[in-house]
Amino acid sequence: MPQKKPQWIAFQGEPGAFSQQAVRKLLGDRVKVKPCQRFEEVFDALEKRIVDGAVIPIENTLAGSVHENYDHLLRYNFEIVGETSLRIVHNLITPPGVSFKKVRRVYSHPVALNQCLEFFAKNPQIEKVPFYDTAGSVKMVMEKGLTDAGAIASALAAEIYGAKILKKSIEDDRRNFTRFFLLRRPKDRRFPPIRSDSSRGWKTSLVFTTRNIPGALFRALSAFALRDVNLTKIESRPLRGKPWEYLFYLDFLGHINDQKCQNALRHLKELADFIRVLGCYPRGEELR
Amino acid sequence: MPQKKPQWIAFQGEPGAFSQQAVRKLLGDRVKVKPCQRFEEVFDALEKRIVDGAVIPIENTLAGSVHENYDHLLRYNFEIVGETSLRIVHNLITPPGVSFKKVRRVYSHPVALNQCLEFFAKNPQIEKVPFYDTAGSVKMVMEKGLTDAGAIASALAAEIYGAKILKKSIEDDRRNFTRFFLLRRPKDRRFPPIRSDSSRGWKTSLVFTTRNIPGALFRALSAFALRDVNLTKIESRPLRGKPWEYLFYLDFLGHINDQKCQNALRHLKELADFIRVLGCYPRGEELR
Repeated sequence: MPQKKPQWIAFQGEPGAFSQQAVRKLLGDRVKVKPCQRFEEVFDALEKRIVDGAVIPIENTLAGSVHENYDHLLRYNFEIVGETSLRIVHNLITPPGVSFKKVRRVYSHPVALNQCLEFFAKNPQIEKVPFYDTAGSVKMVMEKGLTDAGAIASALAAEIYGAKILKKSIEDDRRNFTRFFLLRRPKDRRFPPIRSDSSRGWKTSLVFTTRNIPGALFRALSAFALRDVNLTKIESRPLRGKPWEYLFYLDFLGHINDQKCQNALRHLKELADFIRVLGCYPRGEELR
Repeated sequence: MPQKKPQWIAFQGEPGAFSQQAVRKLLGDRVKVKPCQRFEEVFDALEKRIVDGAVIPIENTLAGSVHENYDHLLRYNFEIVGETSLRIVHNLITPPGVSFKKVRRVYSHPVALNQCLEFFAKNPQIEKVPFYDTAGSVKMVMEKGLTDAGAIASALAAEIYGAKILKKSIEDDRRNFTRFFLLRRPKDRRFPPIRSDSSRGWKTSLVFTTRNIPGALFRALSAFALRDVNLTKIESRPLRGKPWEYLFYLDFLGHINDQKCQNALRHLKELADFIRVLGCYPRGEELR
């Protein structure tokens, strides 16, 4: 069924952010994007129907989970309908015409600057300058037409702002990947507009709390282990209002409608005080 | 055995930070303190023998774990020798002589400002101004002698800078607690100078990685559950160099020399690729 109107997707960051690359990878480039300053705005835009979907980073292989987004997943009632991962490639980007010899300052988000320490060690003439956003730093050096400065950001940011990639892939560790979720309002059948590839099988994400008794987490995990349902991720977060108790977020391999997954969930419900399935989606490629 | 020289403790933040309150609670006020700007400096100061011990926050009941410190615990080779928790009480603090009616701006760390939203909603004439540190904002309003501004920080910060507490406990949620670890260099028997209270029993912290096989975490937890060793915390962090694999940090109740804890550890060693005990220490009071 062909789409009449293009659909809108919210993400956090300036145009050209890694999240926008994830939007392209998940949905192609025919969707429209709404960049937001903060993650909360991304979730709000989806709730207020300003957008049809949202793409959020959920974990990075160097920095760990994006805990704020785990908290938002609980607070808002959205459905995870896709996942993807990207290799985070940091490029040195300048306005066209700037040569490497002239570069004295490089702007970027502090996390990106810290992931390129070897580059800065080898080039002591260049100063690291923290900026609020990776793609935003490309936007700024272009708008100001700086002739002695650059930015560290994605290739997409260079493309969007008409800047030049002076050096590709200057990050210290190439095993730097970020995993993203695609979200929609619950059961919004119009979204996503394109079918994702489920050839790698399915994944299900849920969140639960255990009763505060000894061995509670072990028993909860037994619901999956005893049925050979494989967990791929577990994350704990503090439980609001119950100091020193925790929420657990789990991802497991399998479709929610598989008999053994249904059995595991029924077993988990016997043990859990609270449980919510956050989504069931085609398993993304795990870049390594 | 009386101490001859006072011992030095590093913590992150300006004098008067909540971490310094934790130092007092753990060690009394006879130790000397070295405030550091960043957590990494705290760990470095202990490694370079500039200090004898360090106090670091490890989790907060609203914000969750301090993941950076979990990473440092792995990277440095220190021993956890104590824990304590504090209720985080946010106070409105001004220079003496400033009345509440005059206050137009309040400075503090963004996390503290966000934990006092009801106060700001009730007092729309007061602007929130983000600052780099809670205690540092008291220092600043005092140094500048501001007559229309205040800060949000601990009672200790008011005491240290000679400021006045204008309103006590303005935080939205009183169930805001932070847990701290006391660290020393491994087996440094001179430290800590005072014996902690072990009347609540003992706790042990460790970190391990599982083989990347289905059910690995479940089996690892079985080493404890099958022996009725109670876990109080589990935290996962990404494993460097192995994308989508994780390190697990566990706290359990019991002394490392108890027979059943020894058995559990021996069992875990059969299953784990890597395991390191981070410390065994008297269980702190769990404020609620």
